[in-house]
Amino acid sequence: MPDLWQDAMDHAVTLARKAGEIVRDALQNDLKIMLKEKFPGHSFIGEESVAAGEPCVLTENPTWIVDPVDGTTNFVHGYPFVAISIGFAVNKMLEFGVVYSCIEDKMYTARKGKGAFCNGQPLQVSDQKEINQSIIATEFGSNRDPDAVDKIFSSMRKILCLPVHGYVPASGCVEAYYEIGIHCWDVAAAAVIVSEAGGVLMDVEGGPMDLMSRRVLAANNNIIAERIIKEIEAFSAVRDDEPVDPIK
Amino acid sequence: MPDLWQDAMDHAVTLARKAGEIVRDALQNDLKIMLKEKFPGHSFIGEESVAAGEPCVLTENPTWIVDPVDGTTNFVHGYPFVAISIGFAVNKMLEFGVVYSCIEDKMYTARKGKGAFCNGQPLQVSDQKEINQSIIATEFGSNRDPDAVDKIFSSMRKILCLPVHGYVPASGCVEAYYEIGIHCWDVAAAAVIVSEAGGVLMDVEGGPMDLMSRRVLAANNNIIAERIIKEIEAFSAVRDDEPVDPIK
Repeated sequence: MPDLWQDAMDHAVTLARKAGEIVRDALQNDLKIMLKEKFPGHSFIGEESVAAGEPCVLTENPTWIVDPVDGTTNFVHGYPFVAISIGFAVNKMLEFGVVYSCIEDKMYTARKGKGAFCNGQPLQVSDQKEINQSIIATEFGSNRDPDAVDKIFSSMRKILCLPVHGYVPASGCVEAYYEIGIHCWDVAAAAVIVSEAGGVLMDVEGGPMDLMSRRVLAANNNIIAERIIKEIEAFSAVRDDEPVDPIK
Repeated sequence: MPDLWQDAMDHAVTLARKAGEIVRDALQNDLKIMLKEKFPGHSFIGEESVAAGEPCVLTENPTWIVDPVDGTTNFVHGYPFVAISIGFAVNKMLEFGVVYSCIEDKMYTARKGKGAFCNGQPLQVSDQKEINQSIIATEFGSNRDPDAVDKIFSSMRKILCLPVHGYVPASGCVEAYYEIGIHCWDVAAAAVIVSEAGGVLMDVEGGPMDLMSRRVLAANNNIIAERIIKEIEAFSAVRDDEPVDPIK
């Protein structure tokens, strides 16, 4: 009955598109519109607004840094999932972060100085100090410059050869996450959560994390962080707040 | 103004939860209900229904294999994203696959013998035959058995040392993807798309892919597939259609 299956396939396409449109609206439009209505004087940064040509500069003004789909909270989670990530900065300092993993109904929240929570339960990073008992996560990022890609691979290979070990806690947590090429909206909310869970955030060459630099190393403690920094072949990414040349 | 920021944070939590509930309903409930209404005599397999205790056995009956969030179509895409994945099998053979990446509005479709498309444009796998020019993707899977984890790491290290190279096409495509521990609902739709785009699907030790075996190797061609098979340290996963012991 080939006609029936074509009909079934057409139906599948229609349903997938319909469900997808609801998801897209909820993640991209509804959330942003509701935030802007409530806080009209605040600034907003997100992948969507930047793609639409809006500025991506962190000012002193209260600023919402919002991402509808955040694969980078793999640092907290480890599996692909749909998350809503909302970070909030005032005077260029992150005040709180909210990451809602909507399929599993896990609400991660953290406010500066007040701890990190998942569904209200306190979160604490792993106390692992042995690199060979640690799981390290990274992403390739979107940089396709051959030199950058070589460095990304080389760093991964060096870290794999430390060796890091295969003990993975059931929660899917990892001891460290690093990436060059990540955007501020991928990092903002998760950074507060990691920090308030007792973890550390650094630049991939050490020193304080710069939210707009597109480089981040998050780890459960300084020992693991510094061990990984030794192996990372760092390079620069075009900053999130780099002025865009209007002629180009 | 600490009270204002607490208010802002509370608002962020409320909005994230609200948007997330809409997303979850659209992905998990609405889609399945609409399919069941249209095709009441068909069978349905999905992570949700299996978690709810429904059977996960592929019969001759027309069967929808549906996944709301499919991280494994990284094979096609390479970035974290929200997708709706719908596969359809009749007489245990996959008839068509639909993957809708809803944020980017990309609709991947493939019907057996009729080719694969993205938004109506024909899809074709890369013609790369050199392993050291290929990008290989994998996932850790959810198996935390130490022997399995050791084999996963060992395979990754061996494949990295082939070496595979850092040329990544702008589309984020990869030459091959393999995983042990994947579920049928992660594979079904993507398998038809890969196959109809000219790629090959195999078991990780070679031979035909078994949809319920939780093992898959997808590649752009047999040369790349067979080169990778040599490096994979295979192990068994509990099959998706393994009878669950009611006593345990």
